[in-house]
Amino acid sequence: MTDNDELLAERRRRSLGPAYRHFFSRPLYLTRGEGVWLFDNDGRKYLDCYNNVASVGHCHPHVVAALHRQASTLNTHTRYLHHAVVEYAEMLAATLPGDLSVCMFVCTGSEANDLAYQIARAVTGNDGAITTSGAYHGNTTLVTELSPDSGRRRPAPDYIVDVEAPYTYRGTFGAGHADYENAYADLVDAAIDTLRERGKAPAMMIIDNIFDAHGILTPGPAYHQAVYRKVRAAGGLMVADEVQSGLCRLGEHYWAFEDVDVIPDIVTMGKPLGDGHPLAAVVTTPDIAAAFANTQHYFNTFGGNPVSTAVGRAVLEVIANENILANVGATGRYLKGGLDELAARHELVGEVRGKGLFLGVELVTDRADRTPATDAARRVVEHMRESGVLIASTGAHSNVLKFRPPMVFRKEHADLVLAALDEALTETV
Amino acid sequence: MTDNDELLAERRRRSLGPAYRHFFSRPLYLTRGEGVWLFDNDGRKYLDCYNNVASVGHCHPHVVAALHRQASTLNTHTRYLHHAVVEYAEMLAATLPGDLSVCMFVCTGSEANDLAYQIARAVTGNDGAITTSGAYHGNTTLVTELSPDSGRRRPAPDYIVDVEAPYTYRGTFGAGHADYENAYADLVDAAIDTLRERGKAPAMMIIDNIFDAHGILTPGPAYHQAVYRKVRAAGGLMVADEVQSGLCRLGEHYWAFEDVDVIPDIVTMGKPLGDGHPLAAVVTTPDIAAAFANTQHYFNTFGGNPVSTAVGRAVLEVIANENILANVGATGRYLKGGLDELAARHELVGEVRGKGLFLGVELVTDRADRTPATDAARRVVEHMRESGVLIASTGAHSNVLKFRPPMVFRKEHADLVLAALDEALTETV
Repeated sequence: MTDNDELLAERRRRSLGPAYRHFFSRPLYLTRGEGVWLFDNDGRKYLDCYNNVASVGHCHPHVVAALHRQASTLNTHTRYLHHAVVEYAEMLAATLPGDLSVCMFVCTGSEANDLAYQIARAVTGNDGAITTSGAYHGNTTLVTELSPDSGRRRPAPDYIVDVEAPYTYRGTFGAGHADYENAYADLVDAAIDTLRERGKAPAMMIIDNIFDAHGILTPGPAYHQAVYRKVRAAGGLMVADEVQSGLCRLGEHYWAFEDVDVIPDIVTMGKPLGDGHPLAAVVTTPDIAAAFANTQHYFNTFGGNPVSTAVGRAVLEVIANENILANVGATGRYLKGGLDELAARHELVGEVRGKGLFLGVELVTDRADRTPATDAARRVVEHMRESGVLIASTGAHSNVLKFRPPMVFRKEHADLVLAALDEALTETV
Repeated sequence: MTDNDELLAERRRRSLGPAYRHFFSRPLYLTRGEGVWLFDNDGRKYLDCYNNVASVGHCHPHVVAALHRQASTLNTHTRYLHHAVVEYAEMLAATLPGDLSVCMFVCTGSEANDLAYQIARAVTGNDGAITTSGAYHGNTTLVTELSPDSGRRRPAPDYIVDVEAPYTYRGTFGAGHADYENAYADLVDAAIDTLRERGKAPAMMIIDNIFDAHGILTPGPAYHQAVYRKVRAAGGLMVADEVQSGLCRLGEHYWAFEDVDVIPDIVTMGKPLGDGHPLAAVVTTPDIAAAFANTQHYFNTFGGNPVSTAVGRAVLEVIANENILANVGATGRYLKGGLDELAARHELVGEVRGKGLFLGVELVTDRADRTPATDAARRVVEHMRESGVLIASTGAHSNVLKFRPPMVFRKEHADLVLAALDEALTETV
């Protein structure tokens, strides 16, 4: 950082306050982005292996052109008829299976998850909510309560119950357990019982299908299917939070829940939809949408405006035109293969997890004890930044390296990541 | 509507569901906007006397250029250092009095009000909230509870108490009451007592300074100052919801609370900040920001991103360069004078209220009984639409015509509105 950067950082501290944090001990001052590349104010180039919001690449020209065209023409809201929101809703619904065909537009994943709860509560007549213990689902007052590890600062309100996530590397049931997926799913029974003891029943259970904040987990169909059966039998809806895992991110389908053969009642979407533009959505069935509309109208000033939906459409067009899904699958397998190979050579690596272009490498100081290597993870992240590759860490112990690049990432980019990681792991012992 | 419009409306019903509503019985299909003008798909021109989101005019070229320039260059988030968010925060803080100098950026007014509650709760250690009975503050789960008339569908949770708003035309205390402002303010004592009986104290009271959903009210300094004293004496913070009333809308100052000589602890801002772009903010003092940061970090993926803040800055530049504040004052006085003149001639008009370019005309079927003329208001709105002028209605009875145009509205536009309203009132008896 130059003196000027330090001055800007100080102005930032004063004008944004201390609740805002930086990535990296030495703040990174980025000034330009293009595809998978970011550039700092000295013109230095960084390979972006972290940012999923720029889903189809930084400043994608097709998306920027759509934004500019519509912003120059009209930007109002959904109280007027407009083709952009209808066309985008239809295109989005076409990516989804089953009856998931009704879209309600909001601006952020937090708003989407908050609205999902309002819908579930209105439709089921219940007010309970089940969430996983390490989850992050967003930052409204309600959604913070659904985010046990990151936001909640007090005992959960009595209508929210946490269940342990299926984290075989550290959790109650290891991968060696004969039927660990059902064993984890059975924990949902206890959550439903807890609600019942309080005179309540679940309106919904919410699951982030890549369990990002938990350190990236991918339980199979048996887990999800059992959980869906239990929650529905207790009168609740299943909400798939696809803010992190959705829109081709896992490389097999558009949506992560498709990988595990379930169909949620409500799907929430956010970050990647607008390639950086604030656009998010709740998608549900006509029956649920109708039952919700019987209890209340819904309006979101900016949600579904012509500009945001023109941008959303442009992102879907890029995904189709550039074969993004296939690229995520192929590049993801290649990168994961390389991470597995590094794991075989570096004692620091406890486990490699994830799918598509959402991969995690859990670092441990000791493979037998599985002691979280939190400090080493921090040093690896900083070392890679110095090598020109941006990643971050996740999990309760911040010891899981997270690889989640724009989905236009190619094998040659994966090679750069693997070389930088090899060096960082070698030098961080 | 053509057959094609009807087809689009039907596709909309299927893809967005029945919770979405239209303005007007015959949906208006808008396709282009420019300044104070909107154009439908037949090329018909409408004078926009309703939309405050397009605060400095539809598709303002300076704002669109800033959006395009930054979206072509970089769009990330506040975990990296960037000048745009810092510069915008400083410019925004410079419009505010006192210690209101720390900005936290979100995407919607709902998120802003939701965050204000989280801050107030964290800083005061209390969890009570006081709101006015007819208020609308947004649509998150928490903020819906703070919006008694529009969203709340069940008894309020025990930590929220409503107080009657100072609506002299219909409320407990009329304008003829010797000291109606203090009489209304005294109702806050009862709300604080109610919280106390429940073992609680106020974290905050939230006030929309133009009382939009109540039918547009402008109590004077005595009301606000007394309320501020009472809430603060009980340990709570004062939150000014300036989503509707702020950013020069009332024509005297940038922020409506300045008109009544109070300084809030927290100011929330939304709709007009981005001239259509999803941009919102919470502004508070360094002390409150520091106390909040002691309890939690804050991050909003899209909030404060380089594109949104470049747009926000462009809007502030337009406001300064085009003398928007003076224009709102002058055009607002002129329009209100015209409305007063129509009130003298049309029995339907019970009262003309408001300030700047946020004016209300309450319609009554009978001036003595003050019976709300809900159906007449609907017909006036529809009639004006046919005359090419867009307005809407507000208030608990939807009988208050609302005039709230883009702030580049001029006297010649006001003349068109007054002529159309004169005709609509004449034909709607």
